[in-house]
Amino acid sequence: MTVSRPSGRASDQLRTISIERHYTRHAEGSVLVAFGDTRVLCTASIEDRMPLWLRGKGEGWVTAEYGMLPRATATRTQREATRGSQGGRTMEIQRLIGRSLRACVDRQALGERVVTLDCDVIQADGGTRTAAITGAYVALVDAVNSLMKRENLRRNPIIGAVAAVSVGVYQGMPVLDLDYAEDAHCDTDMNVVMNDGGGIIEVQGTAEGHAFRRSEMDAMLDLAEKGITELVGLQRAALELG
Amino acid sequence: MTVSRPSGRASDQLRTISIERHYTRHAEGSVLVAFGDTRVLCTASIEDRMPLWLRGKGEGWVTAEYGMLPRATATRTQREATRGSQGGRTMEIQRLIGRSLRACVDRQALGERVVTLDCDVIQADGGTRTAAITGAYVALVDAVNSLMKRENLRRNPIIGAVAAVSVGVYQGMPVLDLDYAEDAHCDTDMNVVMNDGGGIIEVQGTAEGHAFRRSEMDAMLDLAEKGITELVGLQRAALELG
Amino acid sequence: MTVSRPSGRASDQLRTISIERHYTRHAEGSVLVAFGDTRVLCTASIEDRMPLWLRGKGEGWVTAEYGMLPRATATRTQREATRGSQGGRTMEIQRLIGRSLRACVDRQALGERVVTLDCDVIQADGGTRTAAITGAYVALVDAVNSLMKRENLRRNPIIGAVAAVSVGVYQGMPVLDLDYAEDAHCDTDMNVVMNDGGGIIEVQGTAEGHAFRRSEMDAMLDLAEKGITELVGLQRAALELG
Amino acid sequence: MTVSRPSGRASDQLRTISIERHYTRHAEGSVLVAFGDTRVLCTASIEDRMPLWLRGKGEGWVTAEYGMLPRATATRTQREATRGSQGGRTMEIQRLIGRSLRACVDRQALGERVVTLDCDVIQADGGTRTAAITGAYVALVDAVNSLMKRENLRRNPIIGAVAAVSVGVYQGMPVLDLDYAEDAHCDTDMNVVMNDGGGIIEVQGTAEGHAFRRSEMDAMLDLAEKGITELVGLQRAALELG
Amino acid sequence: MTVSRPSGRASDQLRTISIERHYTRHAEGSVLVAFGDTRVLCTASIEDRMPLWLRGKGEGWVTAEYGMLPRATATRTQREATRGSQGGRTMEIQRLIGRSLRACVDRQALGERVVTLDCDVIQADGGTRTAAITGAYVALVDAVNSLMKRENLRRNPIIGAVAAVSVGVYQGMPVLDLDYAEDAHCDTDMNVVMNDGGGIIEVQGTAEGHAFRRSEMDAMLDLAEKGITELVGLQRAALELG
Amino acid sequence: MTVSRPSGRASDQLRTISIERHYTRHAEGSVLVAFGDTRVLCTASIEDRMPLWLRGKGEGWVTAEYGMLPRATATRTQREATRGSQGGRTMEIQRLIGRSLRACVDRQALGERVVTLDCDVIQADGGTRTAAITGAYVALVDAVNSLMKRENLRRNPIIGAVAAVSVGVYQGMPVLDLDYAEDAHCDTDMNVVMNDGGGIIEVQGTAEGHAFRRSEMDAMLDLAEKGITELVGLQRAALELG
Repeated sequence: MTVSRPSGRASDQLRTISIERHYTRHAEGSVLVAFGDTRVLCTASIEDRMPLWLRGKGEGWVTAEYGMLPRATATRTQREATRGSQGGRTMEIQRLIGRSLRACVDRQALGERVVTLDCDVIQADGGTRTAAITGAYVALVDAVNSLMKRENLRRNPIIGAVAAVSVGVYQGMPVLDLDYAEDAHCDTDMNVVMNDGGGIIEVQGTAEGHAFRRSEMDAMLDLAEKGITELVGLQRAALELG
Repeated sequence: MTVSRPSGRASDQLRTISIERHYTRHAEGSVLVAFGDTRVLCTASIEDRMPLWLRGKGEGWVTAEYGMLPRATATRTQREATRGSQGGRTMEIQRLIGRSLRACVDRQALGERVVTLDCDVIQADGGTRTAAITGAYVALVDAVNSLMKRENLRRNPIIGAVAAVSVGVYQGMPVLDLDYAEDAHCDTDMNVVMNDGGGIIEVQGTAEGHAFRRSEMDAMLDLAEKGITELVGLQRAALELG
Repeated sequence: MTVSRPSGRASDQLRTISIERHYTRHAEGSVLVAFGDTRVLCTASIEDRMPLWLRGKGEGWVTAEYGMLPRATATRTQREATRGSQGGRTMEIQRLIGRSLRACVDRQALGERVVTLDCDVIQADGGTRTAAITGAYVALVDAVNSLMKRENLRRNPIIGAVAAVSVGVYQGMPVLDLDYAEDAHCDTDMNVVMNDGGGIIEVQGTAEGHAFRRSEMDAMLDLAEKGITELVGLQRAALELG
Repeated sequence: MTVSRPSGRASDQLRTISIERHYTRHAEGSVLVAFGDTRVLCTASIEDRMPLWLRGKGEGWVTAEYGMLPRATATRTQREATRGSQGGRTMEIQRLIGRSLRACVDRQALGERVVTLDCDVIQADGGTRTAAITGAYVALVDAVNSLMKRENLRRNPIIGAVAAVSVGVYQGMPVLDLDYAEDAHCDTDMNVVMNDGGGIIEVQGTAEGHAFRRSEMDAMLDLAEKGITELVGLQRAALELG
Repeated sequence: MTVSRPSGRASDQLRTISIERHYTRHAEGSVLVAFGDTRVLCTASIEDRMPLWLRGKGEGWVTAEYGMLPRATATRTQREATRGSQGGRTMEIQRLIGRSLRACVDRQALGERVVTLDCDVIQADGGTRTAAITGAYVALVDAVNSLMKRENLRRNPIIGAVAAVSVGVYQGMPVLDLDYAEDAHCDTDMNVVMNDGGGIIEVQGTAEGHAFRRSEMDAMLDLAEKGITELVGLQRAALELG
Repeated sequence: MTVSRPSGRASDQLRTISIERHYTRHAEGSVLVAFGDTRVLCTASIEDRMPLWLRGKGEGWVTAEYGMLPRATATRTQREATRGSQGGRTMEIQRLIGRSLRACVDRQALGERVVTLDCDVIQADGGTRTAAITGAYVALVDAVNSLMKRENLRRNPIIGAVAAVSVGVYQGMPVLDLDYAEDAHCDTDMNVVMNDGGGIIEVQGTAEGHAFRRSEMDAMLDLAEKGITELVGLQRAALELG
């Protein structure tokens, strides 16, 4: 395969990843995550008031909201607050983030609390949802750790790690962690969320140009597994800094 | 494997499928599709006015809207028109239906026209989105055929067939075409959209209980392929009735 | 009078009416009613939670919601859930349905429960609101009967029957039960709701082309009374099937 | 019949009616109408820009909007602008006002212009919609007259007069022009709109307590005819003041 | 200075002011205030139910809502209830009115009650917000007095008087109480709210054409102080009429 | 005066100010401004499509939108996109920012273009609106400079500089540039916008605790003038970095 990626990266190479904790001071967890030029601010907020439908069940909830600053994108995007509602893409992404993070939380151990993960894209260059999940995990751990210091929880509500990456088929070649230049021209695009034990939490694959084969799917899943293993390592390293 | 499904079906067995064309008289295509007790009315409407962002490009558009009658469900669901907006689940589903059907349409051949696929759930028992995609395909073909009779299109805009089915892991056993009783208690749920050439158009898998393994994913994809092959046969049979 | 109706019906002749009970399985009452080509699905849902303003008064409430599938009409109508609100026509109709059905319910006997009548038009050919009222009555009776089997009500909350029909003046001739071809060209259009004792519950008459005379009004009311007597008979026959 | 009305009026007696023209200075027509303690400000605005669906047809449009100041009522009503939408009652009323006034306008003669009748209730004591129609007619005539002075219309777009009144059955006695004390306790309530030739434009009757008989309906229509004849006289007298 | 104002008024002269109490009968306080051709209906409504965030604190709340009838203005303004939300200007004004009136209320003395000041502009000719504040004060006093007659309050919740006026620089000359003809062409526009002790409650100054100097600001504040002293005298005179 | 500020600053001392240009890469101007712990991202976007009401007038427009990330604040604030509308405070602030920046733009020189200034608060600690105005000015200059390089403008649309600061009376002492700890407990709060020639563009003063005297107002305006002179110097220094 002699196809070369616009960024010059190897097909199985992540962009430069950075995870900056304590980025803002009010939130219980606050992480600025960068996947190359994609930058997402992830904050975790813990509140005691539960939604009505969950009260009195002795377990907590984890939810997410996603937003994009109007000029995170190449041309200005209308502010959803001005439009009067969140669009379908936003809803889809924040539902995905919420489901993904709930997969690493023991809701009984959390107790009757809600953790809200706000993921706001400061600058977009492809892969904002996978960066958001990867960063939100670190913010969540920080928030839960501060909770455990404050309150007397019986056990740690965090059960394992969660990270996400996009994979795709670019000009016939399976590639890892697409940036915008690739994303806009690839045939197939798949977002994969996995835990640190190699278990799959979410797979969302879409054929953009033409339908894809099982063999392509297998190659993409292999790449995703490799990438997520690296991301979990980077999350761990960031969290060890204390 | 000695697990038995609530419905008594074999693990690779579809529910009883029916596809009733010309169900209502105004729409260019109108299909009542049933996957067991799940019943969805799919209509295809062809209109000449294009959305602004597509005008003058010489190609058409295919979009979908999804709705659920308030009492399609076991307990009454609030009407979205009363609530004032479509929920996240609705948006996610209608975006999926639209993307899936666009995969079998040559938009240049369609010309500057919009086809809207309205999928309204009359009765829900699991798998409404996969039934919707499968039925909407038939409505789309009927609508395009009526268009071809009326107008002088250069070539048929329909390129292949599209169908969808859900698969999951129920009590450890991979199963095809989940009904509500299974869906509510399964560990993993995956919706697969494929074309009649065995190409994958969409895969959306979610771990409900615990993360799933690559081997489970493979087994589910095998089941999906088998089911979709049968569904494409049923679509073809329905369309041959004329 | 030698005017002939587009349908060939006599001036005092209803369209073919059908009332199909148990049309869907989840609702306490579920009726598909057809007035010719007009088809409306009417479901009755009984819920225990009362609106705030009625709590603790020891009596129930009956309310209605009306919707139209986007392609129930000759050209596609925008979905109200997408538009973000119900239109004035929808509100007017659902308020009429609610008031009409409350006229046959003893709200003390019902107890602190809400019955919601959802009337969704599957196919429209004129007279959807009168078909909805006529069908919703049967769904309501089915729902209340199932409630009486389950709970120990002191007395039957249903007091009499309610049905509705449209009448109009078409090319100078008073006619019963207008279909769309007549409705679109008539001079005057009136919807009448009556009970089985011949009492008038609602009259809504509108001059479309020119103002109407008392004599025309009298002729229309006579036709309505005849039509409603027949409809009440058809409701009774449907309910006797058990 | 020895029933006495709360106001001491005879059963066929209108409240004190006043029609004050030129109440505010900006609108082309501006009328403060009072039916007893019910006071409604009716303004008529003429604009050249047509709604999209009517452009280029060579005819005009007449439409109405209705509002209620928050403290027009005995207890404060939430402002619809704050709530974010107009309620069903408001929509129903403004649709009625618009239809009623269109019945006295020759839309071809009006030319491509929109007349908007804004009817805002300053103080409510029953019968706000009938007062609004009666007052809006006078505002409409003033606005059209000012238009005719300014522009060279071929013929007067106003064809006849329109007025409205409520009638009801109060403690078994048919009565004219209900005030709130009667309206809140009457068995039947009917709004009637007629033209100056005695033709009926709208009839909207609702049984509040129990269904009503044809004989009651006839008595109410007689009262309405008498009341509207008086109202048309009062409109004419007001307009002659110049 | 030889500049003359469009109205012929002296630079420090208010328009003709009138304050008409008991303008409508339902509200606890109801005042029609006129600053020249600007006419605003101000009603004060007292309710016992507190907003959630204030319950149980033993103190009351004063809030305001502002509206403009569609044809209060020279050309018709769209109704905010139709548009679906209040505009930024409306929100800004009603927040200002609320803050201003809270400055003269002892919320502990008021007890757990909400006073809502509805200010609806019947006719606009500049200075609607300052007229609204000046009139709302009188409505508030009337409402609180009626409350004190009904309930046993320990002390009068009204602490001093509040009035407001606009000032500006018109063709280089500082002027008091701008009407629309001045407002539309002035260089600077400032709204000042003061109490009867000469204390400043709000100052909102905006350079329309070019930035203004401290000396201009001083001249405007002097005019405002003179005007507000007169307005407080007129409020007192109106309230003494009983 | 021996009152000491929570931060230990002198009464006429600004917080540490930083202005970081080119903070994100897509916008024509992108500035992260910090007033102590208050951090606001200001982007300037230039677009060619004008709002309808300004088309064909040969002049441009400058507008602003303001947002707050949910966890910019000590406790989580609901996202306005989720709520479905911008609140009154947001609207008030973005209107102020827009007016302030328009004061330094020659709209004829700009030509038919819209500049949108998006000011998003990343972290809040008092004074977000004055930081936003001060930062947005720098983003605006960067955007206009890039426009002048690209297009052949006849003259520079930027006419002077604009900056803003808050002043207040804290425990009786007039102070400059309030942080949250002061803002929450001060008696009076005033936002002042000035240009680099010492002209006043906006003054918005509010008595929080009790009304303020002219002498206090004078002292606050003196402080504001001093602070804005320093801010204009910092803007100039930042822009000279190139």
